[in-house]
Amino acid sequence: MAQGKRIVLASRPVGEPKASDFRIENCPIPTPGPGQALLRTIWLSLDPYMRGRMSDAPSYAAPVPIGGVMEGGTVSEVIASNNPAFAKGDVVLSRAGWQTHALSDGQGLTKIDPKIAPVSTAVGVLGMPGMTAYTGLLEIGKPQPGETLVVAAASGAVGSAVGQIAKIKGARAVGVAGGKDKCDYVKNELGFDDCLDHRDPELAAKLREACPKGIDVYFENVGGAVFEAVFPLLNPFARVPVCGLIAHYNDTDAKPPKWAASMMRAVLTKRLAIRGFIVSDFAARRADFLREMSGWVREGKVKYKEFVTEGLDSAPAAFIGLLKGANFGKQLVRVGPDRQ
Amino acid sequence: MAQGKRIVLASRPVGEPKASDFRIENCPIPTPGPGQALLRTIWLSLDPYMRGRMSDAPSYAAPVPIGGVMEGGTVSEVIASNNPAFAKGDVVLSRAGWQTHALSDGQGLTKIDPKIAPVSTAVGVLGMPGMTAYTGLLEIGKPQPGETLVVAAASGAVGSAVGQIAKIKGARAVGVAGGKDKCDYVKNELGFDDCLDHRDPELAAKLREACPKGIDVYFENVGGAVFEAVFPLLNPFARVPVCGLIAHYNDTDAKPPKWAASMMRAVLTKRLAIRGFIVSDFAARRADFLREMSGWVREGKVKYKEFVTEGLDSAPAAFIGLLKGANFGKQLVRVGPDRQ
Repeated sequence: MAQGKRIVLASRPVGEPKASDFRIENCPIPTPGPGQALLRTIWLSLDPYMRGRMSDAPSYAAPVPIGGVMEGGTVSEVIASNNPAFAKGDVVLSRAGWQTHALSDGQGLTKIDPKIAPVSTAVGVLGMPGMTAYTGLLEIGKPQPGETLVVAAASGAVGSAVGQIAKIKGARAVGVAGGKDKCDYVKNELGFDDCLDHRDPELAAKLREACPKGIDVYFENVGGAVFEAVFPLLNPFARVPVCGLIAHYNDTDAKPPKWAASMMRAVLTKRLAIRGFIVSDFAARRADFLREMSGWVREGKVKYKEFVTEGLDSAPAAFIGLLKGANFGKQLVRVGPDRQ
Repeated sequence: MAQGKRIVLASRPVGEPKASDFRIENCPIPTPGPGQALLRTIWLSLDPYMRGRMSDAPSYAAPVPIGGVMEGGTVSEVIASNNPAFAKGDVVLSRAGWQTHALSDGQGLTKIDPKIAPVSTAVGVLGMPGMTAYTGLLEIGKPQPGETLVVAAASGAVGSAVGQIAKIKGARAVGVAGGKDKCDYVKNELGFDDCLDHRDPELAAKLREACPKGIDVYFENVGGAVFEAVFPLLNPFARVPVCGLIAHYNDTDAKPPKWAASMMRAVLTKRLAIRGFIVSDFAARRADFLREMSGWVREGKVKYKEFVTEGLDSAPAAFIGLLKGANFGKQLVRVGPDRQ
């Protein structure tokens, strides 16, 4: 019987995930039953939210069980099908997880048209990260012409789209990213007005200089030192969509951050709006997102960068690196070829 | 020359305001110049926000200068007028402050119709506190039928209106107040579903019992122990309008509260919306507020209670008491008779 491979959660990480928290298993490639399609993974998307699924702390989604296949969005090819809605050769967006093959009853599968854009964008700029940027920014952040937006992880899948959409809406976009190469890319390629290195010990002072009129929208995807630098610069009526806190995902202690003592006072006196969201909260905006975002990508108004590691086995190390900002662009794992 | 009286800010309080932070001064009653009206104060409203005006920490409004008359809303009678818009005998809503008499050029004065309701309601249920409750609850809190709302200072001017409006909107209203008498009043007179004593050492556990389906709207006007008890009970998609933090107004240290470490994580995983506001942010809703609220008051759906101290001299002690919850209902100072 042909062999496939899968990566399961071996243990719940304490702090930073380690390679030993994952286990690579060989397994038989399953045979589709009635109504089922067999999928072969082409691209596996790695995203920071997966750190939450490895933990059993209460969250908006159930954790991956110990021994369970790690969750994740994939771009997959249908290689056999007993489901009339999907034909052999179809390329689909799936939540097949960290494995080479998966069965699907068709629920939650979406066909991808390879003519519109490279199929990998279905888990990137035209997928979950792009839609996270689009909905959080436009539904909560609501940047207005002349306002200032700040976003961290600005060269990443979400942050890069956030800043570029803010620019389209007429706002000033200031990014924060890790290191000179990323900052240069964010400024020179993506067209942000400025980009600061979060490792700079003078981050707070430099951010103040880069935002002479204060900050009207802070798209929160990291927390930590960036939020501390941002917080005093927030203008009255600033909006803070919160979609991630990557700087804290590996936290093991629970010391209150420095800003916390004054946080609610600032919420009151500055009339701040702080609101958490996940992309599925705005599922109703999917058609708008796809129409607008694919238009912007086509017109070159929204650019994206992919950071690819090769082979399913590379996923654990790539994911551990992602949480440290070792990626430069949307983190993808090339699990199989586009066409067999 | 006839003598009036005023209360000025003698010094900026450190922590709790003391009587010596105020100074009572005699002063001549002024004579109105061209275009001016002379006002005689009938009612002075005392409200927690005034603690903020005594401090020079950055806020949404400038502080009262040392030696300046304490700010405050009043119901006043026009006793002389060189302004064609206001006639002797008119009763007006004014921001005349803590004094027996004031000049006005007519800016910001609003005539009060004494036939609609007792004129004192213009600084209470039909005034700033009522409109704070109405706008914050309906514009940010948005209680839905069957949802659970919690509000502290539930027998006070804002809290009492918040809970009653939530009931009108079909929500379950749970109050928090200081002591058995207030709690009984909130339950039996105002019709809240429950009311808990914030001094109860078992507050957190009792709140959990009183909110078996969690909390969907927390109208934040106190902070402190109530917020700590509320925070873990907030449901996904809960809304937290923040209009006051009375428990913290006298804070002199800035120790991060216990909940702060997990706050942003909860914002993210529960998709909370936390938003500060002050009543003037929703000035455009004033006509709606007056129409709806006066209707509810007339129909007995919104009840209110006034807590009156006699004479301008009583204002400092009454205000110090207000910050400690010594009042029972809307705190008013009777500065002069309804009619001279």
